[in-house]
Order: sequence, then C-alpha cells, then structure tokens
Amino acid sequence: MDIIEAILKRRSIRKFTPDPVSRDDLLTILDAGRWAPSGLNNQPWRFLIITGNDQRKDALQDCTKYAHIIRSASLLVAVFLDKKAKYHHVKDCQGAGACIQNMLLAIHGLNLGGVWLGEIINQEEKVHQVLGTDVQGLELMAVIAVGHPAGSGSSSRKELGELLLEPLNT
Amino acid sequence: MDIIEAILKRRSIRKFTPDPVSRDDLLTILDAGRWAPSGLNNQPWRFLIITGNDQRKDALQDCTKYAHIIRSASLLVAVFLDKKAKYHHVKDCQGAGACIQNMLLAIHGLNLGGVWLGEIINQEEKVHQVLGTDVQGLELMAVIAVGHPAGSGSSSRKELGELLLEPLNT
Repeated sequence: MDIIEAILKRRSIRKFTPDPVSRDDLLTILDAGRWAPSGLNNQPWRFLIITGNDQRKDALQDCTKYAHIIRSASLLVAVFLDKKAKYHHVKDCQGAGACIQNMLLAIHGLNLGGVWLGEIINQEEKVHQVLGTDVQGLELMAVIAVGHPAGSGSSSRKELGELLLEPLNT
Repeated sequence: MDIIEAILKRRSIRKFTPDPVSRDDLLTILDAGRWAPSGLNNQPWRFLIITGNDQRKDALQDCTKYAHIIRSASLLVAVFLDKKAKYHHVKDCQGAGACIQNMLLAIHGLNLGGVWLGEIINQEEKVHQVLGTDVQGLELMAVIAVGHPAGSGSSSRKELGELLLEPLNT
C-alpha cells in the first residue's frame, strides 16, 4: 500500500472480527513503532502486548468507557514511556505519538484495523493495577486496539486554510 | 512507496540541495499532517511555512544550534499547537507527534528528505519573536526542515526485546 494513500485513507476501526492477528503481523506493527523518531534517539517507548487469551483483557475493560472496543479487539498494544529513559516531557510525549502513529499506519498497511485509545490514560493507576505494570517507572501513553476490521471507519478534518497561520506564498 | 517500507527505511536528512520543494509536494506534506489522529479529533496543530525567499529564515538560524540545517533546507514547516484548541496537554503533544510523523513519512514518500528539529523549542520565545507568531496563543511543537536530499541518513534502534515489558506469548 502506498505511503501517501495510507496516511490519507487510514481511519479508526472500532469493531473487529474474532480472527486473531498473526505473530508476523504483530512483529511488523511493533517494528513500525520501534522505528519512530525520538529526541536524542532516546526511544523511551515500551510495549505490553495483550491477546485474546490474556485474562487481563477482561479487567482492562473496566478501565475505560470504551470497554466494547477492548472486548472486540483480538490484540491490544499498551504503550508506555519508561520514566528512566525520558529526557523532556513534551518531546517524549510527541515521540510516543509518532510511535503510535507508525503502528496505526502499519496496521492499516497490513489490511488490519486499529484505534488509538487515549481516554484510558485518565485511569492510569487502575490500568497499572490490572496489568501488573510498574506504576512508579512507567507512564501510560495509550492503548492501541487491533484486529481484523468488521466494517469501515469514517472521519473528517479541518480544511487546510484553517490550519495555516499565513496564506501560502509559494 | 510502500507504507511499511517507508516507516522502516525513513531516516533523518540534514543536508539538502538548493532545489525548491514544489507547491504540489508541499500541499501533499501538509495534507499528511492534517490527516493525523487527535484526541476528540480536536486537530490542535497549526502550520507556518517558510521558504527560501522568506527573510525570517535567516533570523530563525539564531534560534537553534542546528542553524546549518535551517540554512540548508529549502522549506521549513513550523508546527504549533493552538492553545484554544487544546484539551489535554499530554494527548495534544502526542497528536502533534503523530502529525509531524505523518509529514516526515510523506516527505520520504515524495523522495524528499526531512528532519524533525526539536531542540529549537527550547528557544520558543525567540522563535515567536522572529516569526511574528502569537506567543500567548500558540505553543511551538517543532520545526521540520525539508528539501531535496544531498546524501542519505543513517540511524539505529534498540532491539525489540529491549522494548517489550513481557516476552511475546503469541
């Protein structure tokens, strides 16, 4: 799939078939995240993978109002920052965003579907409890829900003119 | 160019030929940024475009220790957050990261080169002065330097095993 087309056509997918995501596809998704840029190349992101068999998937549904998406997804990628690897809060959060976006684009490129669950970080402490992750050392950035799409997504964006601080003169 | 290949093969390019970036390519790059995901689809990013003819390009070099990259680039995209459009600092910074990464991938997909300049935000106030942008209303996220590559880039990443909080069991 062409890179420009993938960027422009990717949409959030919130409903999935029960089919599992293959190990090869999972490794491609994680490699995409791994190759994101970061300030000073500090690569502060850390991943926890939860599949359909994992009992923690049930408890994770109680951490978000998007429980139905967690339930439907055959694969979840929880993305954290390693606090020891951080060097600048804004730049590390931006890097996490680049990493998550790389994974979402790879998911789309593999003809899978995914959605960035951000609301769940409002319940970060509960997520750490449920996942058994290090509440002191790790900062939750997002959970990506992944699976084989059951339906298509739709969305819209502002016109470019609304985003430009000055008209283009080129 | 294939999306997965683009994600894995993109490298920062810090030296450019003097050739300008076409208007069509600029519009593609900005469209890529525009289509990034954001929390509640708030799209808080705003763009300021600086080309070779813009006198502000000279003054911008004094805002960063990477003056030589600014000088070499035929196109600069300054990315801000509109403070009125923000809703959650971490999620908005992540969204800016996704937006910047979309643009970097599009740049690579167009056979152009680019690099994410993050150090410049340490001199945010001076950047606002130089660009004449609204220091109260806009938060500087990064400047992307863009041009036709003069040479290739190289980089490395941690092994996946260093990033996984638990071994894969799938």
